Amino acid sequence: MVRLAVDCMGGDHGPSVTLPACQAFLAKHPQAELVLVGLPEVLAEAAQWPRCSVVPASEVVTMDDPVEVALRRKKDSSMRVAISQLKAVGDAPPKADACVSAGNTGALMAVSRYLLKTLEGIDRPAIASVMPNQLGAYTTMLDLGANVDCTAEHLLQFAVMGSALVQAVDGKTEPRVGLLNIGEEAIKGSETIKRAGELLRQADAAGQLNFFGNVEGNDIFKGTTDLVVCDGFVGNVALKTAEGLATMIITIIREEFGRNWLTKAAAMLAIPVLKRFKGRVDHRRFNGAALLGLRGLVFKSHGSADAYAFENALNRAYDAARNRLLDRVHDRIIATLQAMPLVAGQQIQGEAAASGNQATGVAHAA
Amino acid sequence: MVRLAVDCMGGDHGPSVTLPACQAFLAKHPQAELVLVGLPEVLAEAAQWPRCSVVPASEVVTMDDPVEVALRRKKDSSMRVAISQLKAVGDAPPKADACVSAGNTGALMAVSRYLLKTLEGIDRPAIASVMPNQLGAYTTMLDLGANVDCTAEHLLQFAVMGSALVQAVDGKTEPRVGLLNIGEEAIKGSETIKRAGELLRQADAAGQLNFFGNVEGNDIFKGTTDLVVCDGFVGNVALKTAEGLATMIITIIREEFGRNWLTKAAAMLAIPVLKRFKGRVDHRRFNGAALLGLRGLVFKSHGSADAYAFENALNRAYDAARNRLLDRVHDRIIATLQAMPLVAGQQIQGEAAASGNQATGVAHAA
Repeated sequence: MVRLAVDCMGGDHGPSVTLPACQAFLAKHPQAELVLVGLPEVLAEAAQWPRCSVVPASEVVTMDDPVEVALRRKKDSSMRVAISQLKAVGDAPPKADACVSAGNTGALMAVSRYLLKTLEGIDRPAIASVMPNQLGAYTTMLDLGANVDCTAEHLLQFAVMGSALVQAVDGKTEPRVGLLNIGEEAIKGSETIKRAGELLRQADAAGQLNFFGNVEGNDIFKGTTDLVVCDGFVGNVALKTAEGLATMIITIIREEFGRNWLTKAAAMLAIPVLKRFKGRVDHRRFNGAALLGLRGLVFKSHGSADAYAFENALNRAYDAARNRLLDRVHDRIIATLQAMPLVAGQQIQGEAAASGNQATGVAHAA
Repeated sequence: MVRLAVDCMGGDHGPSVTLPACQAFLAKHPQAELVLVGLPEVLAEAAQWPRCSVVPASEVVTMDDPVEVALRRKKDSSMRVAISQLKAVGDAPPKADACVSAGNTGALMAVSRYLLKTLEGIDRPAIASVMPNQLGAYTTMLDLGANVDCTAEHLLQFAVMGSALVQAVDGKTEPRVGLLNIGEEAIKGSETIKRAGELLRQADAAGQLNFFGNVEGNDIFKGTTDLVVCDGFVGNVALKTAEGLATMIITIIREEFGRNWLTKAAAMLAIPVLKRFKGRVDHRRFNGAALLGLRGLVFKSHGSADAYAFENALNRAYDAARNRLLDRVHDRIIATLQAMPLVAGQQIQGEAAASGNQATGVAHAA
């Protein structure tokens, strides 16, 4: 049994989207259970569904709520209560294996971080998602906006966490890791990027991941690597640039086919083709970003997701939980720390001292 | 008369592309003259064309040549000789008003910078180009890869130079400037970006440019602003991400229309529509990036440009030269320095001392 906690109130549309998605998801996953979180009156009917339980929450974090409001004021929000289902309370195990919310990203990350804390060896959680590629598959990318300034060590941690994600969700044993840069040559990029390249080569040599080398923006869509690693500023710009271009192209195609009766007739004939095309680039299929590096699995749906898209976010969370993503990230990070003690020593001395991790008790030569 | 120096040997295809493009360009621009630079035996026929002169160069910078080779070894390269046409020699005025090359970007920037030097008040030259937007117009963006690490002051300089470019080439009197960020709110982004936002607001208040505020990746294609300013790492990733997605989408459309005889029939009927669509997003139409901030106008064509694309790069250089882009950039930078003496003082103290610019002799409080 895999149990998902769902923030039923989050997103632009709230329960009108999340509940039909939950219902469709349950019908397709007989091994799944859902913990629905939200206003009890809204969830009354859903409480009767099989394999469903309801946990009440009296408040809702809106899409515009500042992080502070979500964190300090709305302590009984559906978002916060849903995330807290991932925590063990006393001797009782956590009530859910993963949590899904379409609520606002900043609030979701802040509350998750506050309630769950980061995994040992992780300085900063990151947001990972996928983009379709020319191979008919998809490319996983992180960070997509959680961290605007990253060190080389952070980028290494992202690569390790992302490798665990691709392994768990896509079943690839040794996902190829690309470092997003402005040229293929190792001498390209900023000092941080060059140093990240060195660390990734070391991690590859130590057998901790499969480093391909530098990749460029177009490689995301070529599918050159399974995973593309970058800082959150660059990742967010790339993601939104791609969304913007896709929207423009679809608008132009619609305009050109709608120009006159002749083009409209051509459109009629081309409908099956255009549908297949749209299906292949439909971002709803790729909905569900993972917040990686926390002591709990949190998945973020696009705020404007419809039921189909939200169901896909549930699917991704389900696959991740079923394939023990949390353990995999933890194990990989610990193994990397042990294989690369210098990096560990430099980066997480604070946490190392607190957690007493042996692997980090080594040379702090910076 | 406007005179363009053309590196006829540069790019993936050299004279087989550049010469037909030059010929087509001359036919359309009776007020233009070309200075063709390259191996004399290759240019013998073109030397007979009206309004053409040939300047011989015995070497060629290849697309793979490292910057050092272009800079220190190939001193008689067509690229270098073409750029040097922009320099006054003794009392004689420069032989050309702008230079166009499809040679490799790193070499072109390095040689241009070495031969021409940067304008007063400019720390680093930047690369500016355009992308089509949903309004049927295009958005100018810089920097696209010349500078991987930028300060807030560099971003301000890019905004000032870019404003001059849009004004000169597109005739917009007060181009709207957007700062590329990961959210619209002024509190978003790294410290550098936040400080750049402050400087841009100051420059706007001082009447030096028209600052819209933060924009996101998708705003490039929405056409929210005329100009988008970012550091070269982010700009390069955004540009190549867009190129990669466009390539994938065109590949998918082709695949889907080629699937079987029915879809092929639909494609036949849709040909005019697809042609118009392709025309609207055709990157060849937007070929010709400006290297801004140098004491001379250098334009960079895509290395893989065909004759149509290279001709467009010639067009852009022609428009820029005709509309006195160099003077405009110079005047705008000086005006901004005078209006914002603190920025000037912090940033270009070295150059200020050398050039004796009054505007920069002010408080160096950092």
